[in-house]
Amino acid sequence: MTQIPSIDEVLQARERLKGHAVVTPLIESPTLNALSQGRVLIKAECLQRTGSFKFRGAWNCISRLDPDKAKGGVVAYSSGNHAQGVAAAAQMMKLPALIVMPEDTPEIKKANTRAYGAVIVTYDRNREDREEIANGIARERGAVIVPPFEHAEIIAGQGTSGLEAIEQAAERDARLDAVLIPAGGGGLTAGNTLAFSAKSPATEVHTVEPEGFDDHARSLESGKRERNAKASGSICDALLSPAPGELTFAINQPRLAQGLVVSEAEVKRAMVFAFEHLKLVIEPGGAVGLAAVLAGKIPTRGRSIAVIASGGNVDPAFFAEVLKGR
Amino acid sequence: MTQIPSIDEVLQARERLKGHAVVTPLIESPTLNALSQGRVLIKAECLQRTGSFKFRGAWNCISRLDPDKAKGGVVAYSSGNHAQGVAAAAQMMKLPALIVMPEDTPEIKKANTRAYGAVIVTYDRNREDREEIANGIARERGAVIVPPFEHAEIIAGQGTSGLEAIEQAAERDARLDAVLIPAGGGGLTAGNTLAFSAKSPATEVHTVEPEGFDDHARSLESGKRERNAKASGSICDALLSPAPGELTFAINQPRLAQGLVVSEAEVKRAMVFAFEHLKLVIEPGGAVGLAAVLAGKIPTRGRSIAVIASGGNVDPAFFAEVLKGR
Repeated sequence: MTQIPSIDEVLQARERLKGHAVVTPLIESPTLNALSQGRVLIKAECLQRTGSFKFRGAWNCISRLDPDKAKGGVVAYSSGNHAQGVAAAAQMMKLPALIVMPEDTPEIKKANTRAYGAVIVTYDRNREDREEIANGIARERGAVIVPPFEHAEIIAGQGTSGLEAIEQAAERDARLDAVLIPAGGGGLTAGNTLAFSAKSPATEVHTVEPEGFDDHARSLESGKRERNAKASGSICDALLSPAPGELTFAINQPRLAQGLVVSEAEVKRAMVFAFEHLKLVIEPGGAVGLAAVLAGKIPTRGRSIAVIASGGNVDPAFFAEVLKGR
Repeated sequence: MTQIPSIDEVLQARERLKGHAVVTPLIESPTLNALSQGRVLIKAECLQRTGSFKFRGAWNCISRLDPDKAKGGVVAYSSGNHAQGVAAAAQMMKLPALIVMPEDTPEIKKANTRAYGAVIVTYDRNREDREEIANGIARERGAVIVPPFEHAEIIAGQGTSGLEAIEQAAERDARLDAVLIPAGGGGLTAGNTLAFSAKSPATEVHTVEPEGFDDHARSLESGKRERNAKASGSICDALLSPAPGELTFAINQPRLAQGLVVSEAEVKRAMVFAFEHLKLVIEPGGAVGLAAVLAGKIPTRGRSIAVIASGGNVDPAFFAEVLKGR
């Protein structure tokens, strides 16, 4: 386990990201406010470079590599969004990137990863170990592994989204009562936990997960890292990590409020709501926070709730099906 | 013809809109910048209250009405976005609203207008005169007409989008070489013309229109207000005004650079691009500026171009078809 990053590392990450990552807007919708009888502030990470927050951590990590030591480039394993973040960051640093991706990754994520110049190797999510494959390739190539969440620099980079959200909320005189964060391995949550603990300690931090992949919610209840029964089978392809990370859970556990869980129908409803009322394209895994608000999984009346819409990389054909099925 | 508004009226409108309208983000996409070899800054008015810029003008006008004189409420004629802006502003001012809408208006626009508490009366776009119908109803009800563009307060309200874009671009050290504005009756363009003339005089201001409804482009060439041959038959339902307004053209003509024209295929391509790369839902009429950039209708290399994405109110079923047809 690498070391737990400090808030200073999150602040340093922000400096490193300046001019490279997008300072994504915190979007407030009068319609959603009226519906929730409170204030809901959407941190639109779908508008981030590469379409998800993952670029933040990837850039924070990869931009610091010593070019002489990193000649073999970088290797990552990812369900898709981390892949794009790593590929784009590596391309900007003129380093080769190889990504180990599940076979069932949405086509848009594979295509975009290739478009950033990366080479893709696929594996079977149910039968193969992605870390083993990636480690083998990294050894062969003399490449640096960029893990999706178990890494101080990755976590610190993801935390910059929380720093921005806190400041953007303050600019609008919103004191955040809670923040809702989609959780896969818990890296985005861990970064935000660091940011909120230091800069907005009164804000409750909640993970949000899809049914069947509620490892954080169960782990928070039991007090130890619980695994999911399945490795695939959710539309929320970005949130299918088998269990909370060791490092991320060490950061998150002491700080998190109850974990929230939403159904696929609630996620689809949130995607359609975002289309109709927010005019944002949010992928299933990125829409779980909004789904929790719309489904009444957290009290909103008279409160200010930040929701991280963590990504927008969704296949057009699938999105069209969701719109038609509404 | 009412009087030409001054920049002071645009500045006053901004004060009036504070806390009521959304200060929409100016969104910059690394992908789009790379593609255009310049900087493209999208003013995301699809994220505005009611899903289009129209709320700005409607609020600027309706919030100033004397409640004693406006007991009969407000009446508007609109292809849809102005209807929603007027209905929402009237509802916020606790005034009744009646909207005269074409029969072929997208369902989402009718439904949303009703959701803001307005009554809808439909007419046939090809055979009936909407102004006549609206004027008759307004006389009967003792209501105030809120015209879609031929009105100083409406134009001043729309111009606040330009003021914001100029300031937001300056915050990012972008000197705007040009701004692209979707044009129907020319109200958004007129407001922006006032804003850019006063605050960013070196910026070229271009209208953008769909093929067959290029009344501004032709009027700018001939020097007089030209009419469109057809009244309907474009996917860009927000841009089907028969001709430039008298007042709006008086403001726009001395200031505008060449009018740009895009095809339906180019508009659809821009909508899909916005979905895939910007993660924004933009309606056809709102996507003409982005379409012009993507289709190379204006030089972008080494330049900074602002594009007003004027609205995002598009029927889900139609949007799904556009995604599937890509």
